[in-house]
Amino acid sequence: MNFNYPIGHLHRRPQTPVLGQLHTKKRTSPSNRGMSLEHDLDQANAYYLTTQRAVVYKKPTPIQIVHVDYPVRAAAKITEAYFQQASTTDYNGVYQGYYIDFDAKETASKRSFPLKNIHHHQIQHLKAVQDQGGIAFMVIRFTQQRETYVLTATKLFEYWEQQRLGGRKSIPYPEFVQHGILVCGGLQLTCPYLDAVDQLIGQRKI
Amino acid sequence: MNFNYPIGHLHRRPQTPVLGQLHTKKRTSPSNRGMSLEHDLDQANAYYLTTQRAVVYKKPTPIQIVHVDYPVRAAAKITEAYFQQASTTDYNGVYQGYYIDFDAKETASKRSFPLKNIHHHQIQHLKAVQDQGGIAFMVIRFTQQRETYVLTATKLFEYWEQQRLGGRKSIPYPEFVQHGILVCGGLQLTCPYLDAVDQLIGQRKI
Repeated sequence: MNFNYPIGHLHRRPQTPVLGQLHTKKRTSPSNRGMSLEHDLDQANAYYLTTQRAVVYKKPTPIQIVHVDYPVRAAAKITEAYFQQASTTDYNGVYQGYYIDFDAKETASKRSFPLKNIHHHQIQHLKAVQDQGGIAFMVIRFTQQRETYVLTATKLFEYWEQQRLGGRKSIPYPEFVQHGILVCGGLQLTCPYLDAVDQLIGQRKI
Repeated sequence: MNFNYPIGHLHRRPQTPVLGQLHTKKRTSPSNRGMSLEHDLDQANAYYLTTQRAVVYKKPTPIQIVHVDYPVRAAAKITEAYFQQASTTDYNGVYQGYYIDFDAKETASKRSFPLKNIHHHQIQHLKAVQDQGGIAFMVIRFTQQRETYVLTATKLFEYWEQQRLGGRKSIPYPEFVQHGILVCGGLQLTCPYLDAVDQLIGQRKI
């Protein structure tokens, strides 16, 4: 029950949950003065959905619920819960009949993308997706350079395997310039990653 | 911090979250003495993943987080959160290069499946998926009959449109027998819904 205190916080129990509110928090690290990659991808996906170009969503964060209160005449309130590690990647959907599946990562490092940002089960998931004929990739942003690349899962697996055999624990930036597809950079306001996927589809058809 | 009380509940703060624990709760309505449809589909998807037949997951329940505690030396604890309505369907994935997308519903009604179980935005989502060349359908279980059917999104749209024009608010059971594909029934222990999807793919190729 809410009491109308003269000065108080009446908005602590929202009656209408705001969709996607969880995902709109901006990162405020000094190396990322622009919008976050997640924000840019959400915007791209909303645009692709509206223009009927693709149907791609970010999956909700998995949460383990321990306790829920059911106040009378109010929405069920979760009072104890914990974040879980996702068993897959964050984004998937359908584009021109193709299943696409990817994860998005940012790095503040100027020289390389650290592989510790990726989990073993995500590699397994991307492999399973590729084996089923899906298009699997990573969207990786170098915040210092203000550049975002699409890197195929196949390329990612190469570096992952090298690391497993005792090789380097990161993918050097020049490798992205050479083998990745630049999606957005500089002062560009949008991040049209499906243009890169078009290239991947084109390579399949050759 | 946990104190070792002689008699106490020491397990309220799990250090290792159990994956999928959220989804293992059984429904206990008298009309559903077997396992829930969700449980059966989770099992089918786990089997399909292991046998490399398909990669299909149930999406996590979307939750709006309002407050999180960060106790020292313990996992972040969510202390205020609310359930959100999903903007899509519950299941999607890739099968033989095809994007598949579906929702699963149970009904205790013997005569018909009430359309109020489906939301307008789910219809819109299934339409968008189909427009992109994905395979969209519903998995619907009649718990009284102990029968589970796959119904194509196209068929669902017909009934939805009829309802919109003032027609009946449910899909009669005999329509499932005639137009649906029976996936599992009776005392059958598994729910191999991809066999129905094979039929849908076969119809596309004609």
